[in-house]
Amino acid sequence: MAPLDLSPADFRALSRKISDFTADYLERLPNLPAFPLNVSGEAVNALFSAEVPIAPMGERAFDPLADVFALSRPNSPRFFGYVFGSGLPIAALGDFAASVLNQNVTAWRSGPAAVTIERTVVGWLAEAIGCSGFSGSLTGGGSQANLMALCMAREAKAPANENGAQGGVIYCSDEAHMSMPKAAMMLGLGQKNVRRIPVNDRFQMDISHLRDAIMRDLREGNRPIAVVASAGTVATGSIDPLPEIADICSEHNLWMHVDGAYGALAAMTVPEKFVGLNRADSLSLDPHKWLYQPAGCGCLLYRDPAAAQRAFSHTEDYARSLSTDPIESFAFFESSMELSRPFRALKIWLSLRYFGLQAFQQRIAEDLRLARILADSVSAEPQLELLAPVELSAVCFRYVRKNADLDHLNLEILQRIIQRGKVCISNATIRGQFALRACVVNHRSTEEDVKAVVSEVLHAANEVSG
Amino acid sequence: MAPLDLSPADFRALSRKISDFTADYLERLPNLPAFPLNVSGEAVNALFSAEVPIAPMGERAFDPLADVFALSRPNSPRFFGYVFGSGLPIAALGDFAASVLNQNVTAWRSGPAAVTIERTVVGWLAEAIGCSGFSGSLTGGGSQANLMALCMAREAKAPANENGAQGGVIYCSDEAHMSMPKAAMMLGLGQKNVRRIPVNDRFQMDISHLRDAIMRDLREGNRPIAVVASAGTVATGSIDPLPEIADICSEHNLWMHVDGAYGALAAMTVPEKFVGLNRADSLSLDPHKWLYQPAGCGCLLYRDPAAAQRAFSHTEDYARSLSTDPIESFAFFESSMELSRPFRALKIWLSLRYFGLQAFQQRIAEDLRLARILADSVSAEPQLELLAPVELSAVCFRYVRKNADLDHLNLEILQRIIQRGKVCISNATIRGQFALRACVVNHRSTEEDVKAVVSEVLHAANEVSG
Repeated sequence: MAPLDLSPADFRALSRKISDFTADYLERLPNLPAFPLNVSGEAVNALFSAEVPIAPMGERAFDPLADVFALSRPNSPRFFGYVFGSGLPIAALGDFAASVLNQNVTAWRSGPAAVTIERTVVGWLAEAIGCSGFSGSLTGGGSQANLMALCMAREAKAPANENGAQGGVIYCSDEAHMSMPKAAMMLGLGQKNVRRIPVNDRFQMDISHLRDAIMRDLREGNRPIAVVASAGTVATGSIDPLPEIADICSEHNLWMHVDGAYGALAAMTVPEKFVGLNRADSLSLDPHKWLYQPAGCGCLLYRDPAAAQRAFSHTEDYARSLSTDPIESFAFFESSMELSRPFRALKIWLSLRYFGLQAFQQRIAEDLRLARILADSVSAEPQLELLAPVELSAVCFRYVRKNADLDHLNLEILQRIIQRGKVCISNATIRGQFALRACVVNHRSTEEDVKAVVSEVLHAANEVSG
Repeated sequence: MAPLDLSPADFRALSRKISDFTADYLERLPNLPAFPLNVSGEAVNALFSAEVPIAPMGERAFDPLADVFALSRPNSPRFFGYVFGSGLPIAALGDFAASVLNQNVTAWRSGPAAVTIERTVVGWLAEAIGCSGFSGSLTGGGSQANLMALCMAREAKAPANENGAQGGVIYCSDEAHMSMPKAAMMLGLGQKNVRRIPVNDRFQMDISHLRDAIMRDLREGNRPIAVVASAGTVATGSIDPLPEIADICSEHNLWMHVDGAYGALAAMTVPEKFVGLNRADSLSLDPHKWLYQPAGCGCLLYRDPAAAQRAFSHTEDYARSLSTDPIESFAFFESSMELSRPFRALKIWLSLRYFGLQAFQQRIAEDLRLARILADSVSAEPQLELLAPVELSAVCFRYVRKNADLDHLNLEILQRIIQRGKVCISNATIRGQFALRACVVNHRSTEEDVKAVVSEVLHAANEVSG
């Protein structure tokens, strides 16, 4: 027995222990606070910032696991912050099996089953959202998928591979995700070459402004590369006008990327909201959001595999496949920024097989329904004001009080809500105003849970008024 | 009960089942072939490329798990291909717990325990390799860590954030990893601005060539940005002369990045080989390699947290922290390209606690010893020829036969070895020659296992000779 290996008996015993521990936790989960109560940075540091143990601790190593779980944000049915999926237990079992199996999903010859299952799952996701024929790969998350997409766009329209970035302009709306400026920085395009297009009253990219911006750049000798459409935006869930953007991209030979990290999976349920999605050149979506998978699991889809290879194929001899068979010579690293890759697909594969695709379509429908119920409850409450239309499952609103600084008041309300721990929501800036924001991508939430948001806001508002 | 949740009873039962299934697998692992035998692309496709199920399959979803495991490359004690860690079962238990807990390790307020444990583990790793005081974060792997490091280098020396890439030159040796040209492409620097510096007879960057290249670029008005030192290189495990490279970087105000994805963790065991490591500005290392963690778990360390923030802080309102406490306002996404992030640190934390740091230091020493034994066995065999000095745990060699095309012969030998399934090795190109390559980063390997490499090469050579 090698000293770092567990004996089969020890693995079996510990594995049973973790199974029981996590099963107990999941039983308690619905009744846990939406955020751990009374925790401070100092207290958490005191527990978890000890020196590295030199000698083995053996099973005692697991003793603080209860503290780790207690000082974590539970995947509560009343968590509506950011856009973060609620974590299917079935998927955790997939992660467990994948981690024991420990495949490096670089290329077929390094993990035949894992590579095949990932390609299958990517095909399932593409087909489910109406993008049959797209290929792609799973990523660590949406930021990485968006970065890879814009890299492909740049290499397709203004290649930097040989001589470096030639300059080029990317268009996205004022409401686009922060991963766009980050990608523009990383790719050597620069913030000044990201045109933020204003939005209309539904928070969608204004098409006439987009046209004007492109024409202005062409006149000034700048080189338009890509338009990034959001579906939906991270603050309000709005969906940019995809068919019009696709038309403009065709007309000007621009790359169309759709950032669907939050919303694109809802095309499985409400395809009518996503008409034009399949006209994208590339498309990101996050199974760790609206497929309720554990973090981090994003996905990049694209129409033309050759475009991914043009950007990402830099293989050297030591990694080159020895096979000439078209299936067996496949390598993800020829079309991804990643070389080593974990077996992310197993959890999705098992989740979709266990529950069937229809159950996911129905649960997304339920999330959409709960968001509308929340919006209606907000509208029905005289002291609350809806700040944006509810296109998907994000609801932005605020508490209103006469003669108050509403931004400050709502910030205080939000802080109070989180301290109370009954529900967890986050914030957004809507037309310059501080908004409370609840987003339902949570397979555990019920009508009662979203209604608790309203009552908690009212409670908190009473408390901060003194 | 929400339709996508498992009942507590079902979770408990399934979780037991996976525990037993994986425990059985781990018991069989030492005797499994090093690569699944007689598998073809078509056969694997036939098993795993079915349509997505619309209706639930329930527990039957797990039926093909045995096939998934059978058609995967086992983490065999006789696997010596590429540089890929052997996967500690204890770490898989950590991944299981992390996946049930499903934290999004974006910022303290989203996962107090997870963020704190990741910062602790990063500190442990830095200190263990002699880089106390460095901070950083875990990444998906080495390619991502190297990309982030070169992005920080570019933003420090020739910022692209505002106006786009200004051009700039990166220096690395002929033996540097393929993630360097890939990063240069992504960052908009371009392949032409990556200077590949020749290596000496120990496959280390030749310092006088490096000096000449920098001086030539300065004369020609190009802008040197960074030198990437390898520790060790992916083919032969050589370590570039770190102190000399650090001196040159100081002299010319260049960023020093050390690609230690493969080797840097060996500094825990043989620090004398890594003198100068702590003079790096940034440093990548892969726990999924020489800390035997499951894929994908890399790490980027850097000296100056402000440099990471200058590159990666693009936060918008909806993600901004509401806290002003220095611990509680911490956000990884202010100093990483990632926004959503999984709880990668838990498995490392549990592994180091369970076995203690010393056990890892000892196991790395054992890997180094096994590689020397393999090299000695190769040298002792008249038909085998060592093609590079063994600095760490990679052994490059070939079979020699009079009047034969040695490149072709050794390719055939390698293919035959993999078909035989007794050991798994890979290949490298050494001074233009096709080499067989065995790399020991495997906590399960014994002396007998590395000696099997030699006997398998000789067997395979006999078979391909007819």
